[in-house]
Amino acid sequence: MLKKVEAIIRPTKLDEAKEALNQYGIRGLTVTQVAGCGLQKGKKGFYRGSEYNIDLLPKVKIEVIAQDHMVEDIVKIITDTVQTGEIGDGKIFIYLLKM
Amino acid sequence: MLKKVEAIIRPTKLDEAKEALNQYGIRGLTVTQVAGCGLQKGKKGFYRGSEYNIDLLPKVKIEVIAQDHMVEDIVKIITDTVQTGEIGDGKIFIYLLKM
Amino acid sequence: MLKKVEAIIRPTKLDEAKEALNQYGIRGLTVTQVAGCGLQKGKKGFYRGSEYNIDLLPKVKIEVIAQDHMVEDIVKIITDTVQTGEIGDGKIFIYLLKM
Ligand SMILES: Nc1ncnc2c1ncn2[C@@H]1O[C@H](COP(=O)(O)OP(=O)(O)OP(=O)(O)O)[C@@H](O)[C@H]1O
Ligand SMILES: Nc1ncnc2c1ncn2[C@@H]1O[C@H](COP(=O)(O)OP(=O)(O)OP(=O)(O)O)[C@@H](O)[C@H]1O
Ligand SMILES: Nc1ncnc2c1ncn2[C@@H]1O[C@H](COP(=O)(O)OP(=O)(O)OP(=O)(O)O)[C@@H](O)[C@H]1O
Ligand SMILES: [Mg+2]
Ligand SMILES: [Mg+2]
Ligand SMILES: [Mg+2]
Repeated sequence: MLKKVEAIIRPTKLDEAKEALNQYGIRGLTVTQVAGCGLQKGKKGFYRGSEYNIDLLPKVKIEVIAQDHMVEDIVKIITDTVQTGEIGDGKIFIYLLKM
Repeated sequence: MLKKVEAIIRPTKLDEAKEALNQYGIRGLTVTQVAGCGLQKGKKGFYRGSEYNIDLLPKVKIEVIAQDHMVEDIVKIITDTVQTGEIGDGKIFIYLLKM
Repeated sequence: MLKKVEAIIRPTKLDEAKEALNQYGIRGLTVTQVAGCGLQKGKKGFYRGSEYNIDLLPKVKIEVIAQDHMVEDIVKIITDTVQTGEIGDGKIFIYLLKM
């Protein structure tokens, strides 16, 4: 059973995440430059009296397709690596591949 | 149940779509610059007598991961926003996430 | 039943793959510039005495959403097109869409 782990993280954390995954034994991954916003936004605006936030911050998306039994470790490795304790650390989403 | 709504739209419609989603309450989304072709192509060529089209137009991909019950609204908001009445308005694809 | 065929190939093979898919009858596809590494890496380094590889090579991701019964043909067309006999020819992953 193959799964895709998709992590959207700060660009400054890419090298560290890549190296940690490689040390763990991950040989294949794909990286895409994206832009995104999460729960907290980069900047704020107002619309009809209420605050809103639509600014996008540069992020990188790391995709790792791996066997089911490795997914938990991969998620932990990425989470441990990207943690800064500040907002905007990133998000991880998981998808099932079609056999 | 989480789903991914993936919309591939004209770059000129990104701000409007982002704002409409934000007004609805969407706080997280990811944007990627892509290139694509749909049913109708940007330019035309000929190969062995029959017309073909392989040109790619710049597009943006918006990805929103959201709870199941919001998906219908998200699709409607994006569809309403990107509509111009001309060809090339965009496409929306939906994926299931692994829990 | 819709599926997504996701192929990550050498950028130099994009035009050929696009044309082969178009000749087959594929009218819609999306292309993203990505960076990636596979089983063999572009460059090598050392970390605590053991060799590691973390370099990313430029690649393109082709995404084709198509009916189930076309998936096998699409995979074959892309595989035939991108083959060079050398390492780094590319990878194809398949996902199920939500109806
Ligand atoms: N529901 C979602 N759908 C799609 N992408 C999301 C979603 N939530 C978060 N993301 C992506 O994950 C990235 C990281 O999310 P995070 O919550 O850490 O916020 P942030 O954008 O990094 O910044 P901050 O939270 O400081 O505004 C986002 O930039 C966005 O690209
Ligand atoms: N079957 C498909 N698989 C993958 N991506 C697709 C598919 N169909 C459409 N797309 C993506 O959605 C985008 C929008 O599709 P749409 O049908 O509006 O065509 P278009 O490329 O915008 O331009 P036009 O239709 O005017 O040629 C495409 O550019 C492509 O990136
Ligand atoms: N397990 C994986 N998860 C995510 N993406 C992968 C995975 N394996 C391969 N890829 C993607 O597919 C691309 C092609 O893989 P391939 O095995 O041909 O290696 P390569 O990076 O092209 O180069 P080389 O094999 O010569 O180092 C990779 O660059 C990467 O983007
Ligand atoms: Mg955040
Ligand atoms: Mg069209
Ligand atoms: Mg290889």
